Amino acid sequence: MRAFFDDLHGDDVVGVAIKDGQISVKHRADIPKAKIFTRHEVSLHTTPSTGIWIIHNQGVYDITRFIPIHPGGSRILLAAGKSIDPFWSVFSIHHTPETYSLLEEYRIGDLAPDGPSDLSAIEEMQKSETEALAKLFGNDPERDERLIVRSERPFNAETRREDLRDSFVTPNHLHYKRNHLPVPVVDEEEFALEIEGPHIEDGFRLSIKELKERFEKADVMVALQCAGNRRKDMTTGTDKPVKGLPWEEGAISNAVWSGVYLRDVLAAAGYPVKEYEKAHMEGVEHVQFDGLDGYGASIPATTAMDPQREVLLAYEMNGEPIPPDHGGVLRVVVPGTVAARSVKWVNKIALSDEESWSHWQRHDYKGFSPSATQETSDYEKAESIQDMPVQSAILDVSERDNRTVHMQGYAWSGAGHGIVRVDVSADGGKTWMDAELHVPPQDRNRRWAWTKWEATVKLPKGVKETELVCKAVDTGYNTQPETVDSIYNVRGVLNSAWHRVRIPVGETGGLDA
Amino acid sequence: MRAFFDDLHGDDVVGVAIKDGQISVKHRADIPKAKIFTRHEVSLHTTPSTGIWIIHNQGVYDITRFIPIHPGGSRILLAAGKSIDPFWSVFSIHHTPETYSLLEEYRIGDLAPDGPSDLSAIEEMQKSETEALAKLFGNDPERDERLIVRSERPFNAETRREDLRDSFVTPNHLHYKRNHLPVPVVDEEEFALEIEGPHIEDGFRLSIKELKERFEKADVMVALQCAGNRRKDMTTGTDKPVKGLPWEEGAISNAVWSGVYLRDVLAAAGYPVKEYEKAHMEGVEHVQFDGLDGYGASIPATTAMDPQREVLLAYEMNGEPIPPDHGGVLRVVVPGTVAARSVKWVNKIALSDEESWSHWQRHDYKGFSPSATQETSDYEKAESIQDMPVQSAILDVSERDNRTVHMQGYAWSGAGHGIVRVDVSADGGKTWMDAELHVPPQDRNRRWAWTKWEATVKLPKGVKETELVCKAVDTGYNTQPETVDSIYNVRGVLNSAWHRVRIPVGETGGLDA
Repeated sequence: MRAFFDDLHGDDVVGVAIKDGQISVKHRADIPKAKIFTRHEVSLHTTPSTGIWIIHNQGVYDITRFIPIHPGGSRILLAAGKSIDPFWSVFSIHHTPETYSLLEEYRIGDLAPDGPSDLSAIEEMQKSETEALAKLFGNDPERDERLIVRSERPFNAETRREDLRDSFVTPNHLHYKRNHLPVPVVDEEEFALEIEGPHIEDGFRLSIKELKERFEKADVMVALQCAGNRRKDMTTGTDKPVKGLPWEEGAISNAVWSGVYLRDVLAAAGYPVKEYEKAHMEGVEHVQFDGLDGYGASIPATTAMDPQREVLLAYEMNGEPIPPDHGGVLRVVVPGTVAARSVKWVNKIALSDEESWSHWQRHDYKGFSPSATQETSDYEKAESIQDMPVQSAILDVSERDNRTVHMQGYAWSGAGHGIVRVDVSADGGKTWMDAELHVPPQDRNRRWAWTKWEATVKLPKGVKETELVCKAVDTGYNTQPETVDSIYNVRGVLNSAWHRVRIPVGETGGLDA
Repeated sequence: MRAFFDDLHGDDVVGVAIKDGQISVKHRADIPKAKIFTRHEVSLHTTPSTGIWIIHNQGVYDITRFIPIHPGGSRILLAAGKSIDPFWSVFSIHHTPETYSLLEEYRIGDLAPDGPSDLSAIEEMQKSETEALAKLFGNDPERDERLIVRSERPFNAETRREDLRDSFVTPNHLHYKRNHLPVPVVDEEEFALEIEGPHIEDGFRLSIKELKERFEKADVMVALQCAGNRRKDMTTGTDKPVKGLPWEEGAISNAVWSGVYLRDVLAAAGYPVKEYEKAHMEGVEHVQFDGLDGYGASIPATTAMDPQREVLLAYEMNGEPIPPDHGGVLRVVVPGTVAARSVKWVNKIALSDEESWSHWQRHDYKGFSPSATQETSDYEKAESIQDMPVQSAILDVSERDNRTVHMQGYAWSGAGHGIVRVDVSADGGKTWMDAELHVPPQDRNRRWAWTKWEATVKLPKGVKETELVCKAVDTGYNTQPETVDSIYNVRGVLNSAWHRVRIPVGETGGLDA
């Protein structure tokens, strides 16, 4: 058999298929010749009248008929007459087999190999792409230089450990930023929030002014955490690949959000919230949110309707109007839930029996078995991440005196669970002591803010280095897993393993820094 | 120094104290001679007029003045004129340093060494003790012989794995039983539930008839689990001592409880439940429950008031009046919370700014650091267990064919979290596959029932035995710890480590059974 296939190898054989016991060999000559277009030809097709063409790798595509049904809207026109690849390197959600196969339906030919005469066309195209990208992110604001940038476009940056350490409430400019798309332009005067779904008044809309006037204002302190917080440790801990930004411990921050309760607004829009809170009601299983940037997500209706979950439509962050990076003029804040559901720049809410159809709800932010691969991770079957597991991290280690160090950090859990204990160890987890906790003034079952902790530990004797460890226990007595091995997933989310920091121990017994 | 103390050794030296640099030596002759009483003499003191005496170890105590302040009430009189030790072996909550030291205040002398003439007195006393104990438990019902009894008095028994396996809803007679005290006599006609606290109408009382007539009936499927479920594995897994009954995997069962919502009853009694659910109200932090057996516990007011938590005052279990062992005529059922808070035979509810002062709320059912000992476990500081962590266990392993076995089990989590995934492994956790889940028809955030699961796994080759493992992930994406080491606690509660079952592998590759 091997020899048979070896015989078939050759430049003119492009494929072999075995069907019903019959072998068929496909030669190059069997393939219809593709039409060939130069870059210049493609660049002339940018309007519906000429047809809208784009380049992807070495293929040329006429996407005129696709424009009206593009989920991301007319933004795709920025690539008209150009290569779409630089845009997809930003809008990375397109890198899926489904998108590739969809695009092939629109293929009209191949790109001609670039010759010396194409140089100026290439240059022109690249310049035009750079301009288009700059325009796309033209509304992005200035950011604080102390942030640790993980990606520029879209902007993603984590907070430095010392900045998280130094304040219980993270200042707005230092709060970690997580954008999936460019920051949109929002005009407060023209802004309107639309709500739709069963029981909802037809065409129900609210301006920001109406939101502020008609509903009681609420302030809730909430730690928001990215599902990928501590992702970097998931790679270093397993030597396995993960997909996503290499967040360390700073993709979490704690702020006071002010706004109105979502359930009050839903009730005003006509939904029988009080009935829902008591027993299951058919037809509404999820509350979907759309943001003006094109992002979308949903939460279970039980979370949205529960008075104790305190889901907010927020217009202030730490007493100021919400800055552009954080979703101003209006955003959702879902306490105790992965930050990916707290949709920024929200302008549409829909009650539905289905989850949001957004890429980020259906094909991202889900957890998988440690044995699942990129190929076997079944996004249809897995449940979307909502409440987050108990988490903790070490933010600072400083020498106190000979053999003694002071540790500081944070701990947090989802679903309103507070922290009952943080165990710290100076010998890699052999022995433990209780850290001192700084607990937020929030009711049991409504502990949305993080808990800060500190501990002074004695270093072991006769070793050259040792491992400092922290692990937290929440009010549900849930605990953190010992290593990342058992929670590893290819998407690199939900790393809540014990946080470990190796430190050298000096000859005198103190820190060998 | 050593020599100095050596010199002091001798039969007549009973103590050495160093205070302010002065050494004082206490000789036997310095101790006042204790009064000596025979068993017969003690047996004559059983009424207030003679004084009420008891024996503990070799001490004699006059507890007449203590009777009115005994937390357990007049039941202590059963030991009058006798040794209290057989009773304390049943009411084991007395085995604390506090109780021992309290009792010493009432010591009036020592018991005379038993001579041949005391034999009849000893026999008489033992007979009387046996009778008293039988009387104490005289109301305990007949139980199903299939239960695995862990203690007879009070009655504690777990459900066999096969019985848990064979039904999604555990039948009443097979549901695990956990009594802390004798089963009380409850007369439905005379029964009244009292409620007290801020905002509550003075002298508010309800008969069972009124409860059934005045409030909407609700049915909720709930898995109740003892905090000590799987305790036995905590000892075998660590070789460290734990205090409590050696429960295996059967201190959990799943039933449909019917009754009325606690919050409806509190609202009818005058409490502004709707205000509480929205924001913190001063003065009420806990809801305390007292049972007719003398047991007591409390839950956070936020749990009690939350409509979504569905806390019940239940009068039916799987469609029948609640059997005596399970708290009939009325019990509390707190879904998602350790069963120890679902107080049976409840006849008093109090809203308070304090937790219940019951022994089981304050000095039991709390978790501690793995490094805490019996002595250093600080019950004042630790938080009482309420919501429980994510849990799973293997109930059955059967051979399918060569190299393949079928596993079945349960998974559950607290706080209304459902189960999103159960990972099973046939090689001790090196590789995993997803089990098939049987999820109860309950809303997200309200999954109080357990999830059953099954999986067919391939056994590894070339080994003589292997370890089957299961671990669950809940809707909060919380996970179970890998081993008991990191969650070990001297009380032996909250064992939610991966469940592991070692099985022999036959030469042909199948089960070597």
